[in-house]
Parts: sequence; structure tokens; C-alpha cells
Amino acid sequence: MVRFPQLRAYACFGPVMLCLKSRTESEWLQRAIANTAEILVDHAHCERKAAANALNLLAKYPEQPQFIAPMLALAREEMDHFEQVIALLDARGIAVSRQSPSGYQYGLFKLLRKGLPDKIIDTLLVAALIEARSCERFVLLSQQHPDEELRNLYRDLLESEARHYGVFVRLANTLADPIAVRVRLDELAQAECAILENLPPIARIHA
Amino acid sequence: MVRFPQLRAYACFGPVMLCLKSRTESEWLQRAIANTAEILVDHAHCERKAAANALNLLAKYPEQPQFIAPMLALAREEMDHFEQVIALLDARGIAVSRQSPSGYQYGLFKLLRKGLPDKIIDTLLVAALIEARSCERFVLLSQQHPDEELRNLYRDLLESEARHYGVFVRLANTLADPIAVRVRLDELAQAECAILENLPPIARIHA
Repeated sequence: MVRFPQLRAYACFGPVMLCLKSRTESEWLQRAIANTAEILVDHAHCERKAAANALNLLAKYPEQPQFIAPMLALAREEMDHFEQVIALLDARGIAVSRQSPSGYQYGLFKLLRKGLPDKIIDTLLVAALIEARSCERFVLLSQQHPDEELRNLYRDLLESEARHYGVFVRLANTLADPIAVRVRLDELAQAECAILENLPPIARIHA
Repeated sequence: MVRFPQLRAYACFGPVMLCLKSRTESEWLQRAIANTAEILVDHAHCERKAAANALNLLAKYPEQPQFIAPMLALAREEMDHFEQVIALLDARGIAVSRQSPSGYQYGLFKLLRKGLPDKIIDTLLVAALIEARSCERFVLLSQQHPDEELRNLYRDLLESEARHYGVFVRLANTLADPIAVRVRLDELAQAECAILENLPPIARIHA
């Protein structure tokens, strides 16, 4: 991972990507290309988990009505993407298998502050960072994967990852001063780099 | 609750409802009518939980590809119903509040056998029973609730509850002999009556 000087932004996908504090290096891309089937299965799981996560937010925080419409829209979109990746896996004869956790989400969830609204804000910002990292890596896959069908898939999907990042940050901004939210996002984004740097080199979107 | 003699069917919604072993009595309906706001909030939670449950099944059993299309379709439909109930709550100025568990789902989940495929079969059949009980009670609400808008809501939704019951039973039938599945469904349905009979009299769809 190449770390950026603090608060300098990585502009791979315009200002929406400002939160990430490191750029993915070519080792990750080479590993992803060499293990395309595993990356696609992981990607299917990521889309399904993102949909479930959106519904879980509604379950955990029913007293936040402003979450309902954006989280339902996000869940629907992630389910569509899940179906799209499943169709591609089917067409290639790749079975969707169970995967052991990479440690990425666990590492991020350990960072959540206790107490409300801090815990909700952090939950939203962690979800934003996961989307931002997906987007950054989908950009690489869309540009450099040797398989044209996959380049197109990732080009089609990266915009929604960036958009979902924005959705989560905007929801966090409904719960606290946007400047305080931005400071916390920067802290979590620094921690996200450290988590990624310490993961074993397995072929995953977030590893 | 009025218990039926074993294996006699309750024909409130045709043969799809064969699994239920008791008929809901008027006490439940009177409680539901007297606590309409609470029933509607519970109903919203039920629809959201049903959508989340469908996605959770895909998470827990990724090696069952036959679950994917029906569970995505079901999750989408439940999300639509959730949104419909939320719109109705909004229009009536009723806030979606957190609810303590009634003990119904907990009681049912305690019945799941261990080991595969038994645990998956039981998970599907418990989901089927929850849908069947919703359907049976939606029939009562659609016929006897004094509020016309709510009668129409429940009339519109009861058919999909019955259909979802069928979806879950059919998925269980992909994992074992349908006769064995039916025997287990009858056992779980007997247990479901006992669980309902022992719940405190709170205003919930499943209490």
C-alpha cells in the first residue's frame, strides 16, 4: 500500500474518493487477475453483504426514518448487482462457495465507538469506506483486467460504489456536524489503511 | 387458540394453508383492532425481517444455488411491502419504534435440528410457518378490521404470504423427500401452536 501524507486525497474517482488514505498497489491487481474466479465469488458475497447491511441498519436504528428510503434503494441496487455477478459466475461454471472472513470488516467494526449517535455515525462511515475501497479497486479492474467482459462489469459498477459512499456520508451528516463527521471519517480512513496493510495476501476485493 | 385434531387442515386460504394446526381466535383480532398502531409497526418490522431473513439464508447456505432466485424475489417483494406499510405509517403520523421480541421467533428457532440438511430444512419450514400464520391473520384483518384502508392493505398482502409459504416448502423439498418434509412440517406446526398459546397477550402479528 502507498500511504498518502495525511489528509491528501487520492483522486482516482474524483472528489467522492477523497476519504481514502492509501492507493492500492499493483500487487493487489496482479493477485486479483491471477485469481479471477475467487475475486468474482468474493465480489458476489460483497454485494449480498452490502444489501444485508443496509437492511440491518434499518433493523438496528428504526428510530432514524431518514435511513429508510436510501437504505432500501441501496439494498435493491446491491441485490441487482449480486444477481448480475451470480449470472456471470453461472455462465462461467464457477460455483459460489463459502469464504472465510479476510479480517477486513472485523477490523473496521472493532473501531466503532460506543454510545449514540457515535456508534451509528461510525457504522455509516465504515460502510462508506468499504464502498470507497471497492470503487477504487473496481477502477483498477475496469482499466487493467485482461478480460473485456470483466472490465465492462467493473466499469458499470464502480459508479454506484462511489455513489453509495456518498449516501453513507450524507446519512452520517444527519446525525452530527458535518465537520466532526469529516474528521472522524479521516480517522477511520487512516485506520482502514492500517487494517489493509496487515491482512494476509489473499485474493479478495478488500484484502 | 382452537387446536385442530392432528393433521386436520384449516382451510382459511385454501390448501396452501394446510400446515397450520390451530385457528386464531377472536381475542387476537380484538386486540389487534384495539392496538392498530402497534400492529402496523409490528407489521413493518415483520416485512423488513422477512426480507433480511431471505438474504441471511443466502449468506448461510451459499452452496444451495437453487435458493438464490426465489430468495431474491422474496426479499424484493418484502421490501416493497415494508415500504408500503412505512408509507401508511407516515401518512397516519405513526413513528416506527423499536419493539421487544414477542418470543415467537425465538421459540421457533429453538426447534431447529442440528446437522445438515436437517437444520436448513427446519429453517425453511419455520419461515414457511411464519408466512402461513401471517396469511391466516391477514385474512382476519382483511375481513373484519373496521378501517377500510387496512382491510384493503391486508387483502392485497395475504396472497403473497401464502405464496411465500409455498416457496419455502418447495425449497425444503429440494433437500429431502417431500413426504419426510411434510411430516416435519406437521411436527413444527404443532409446536408453533404451543408457542403461540404460551406467549403473553401483546398486540403483534405473531403473538
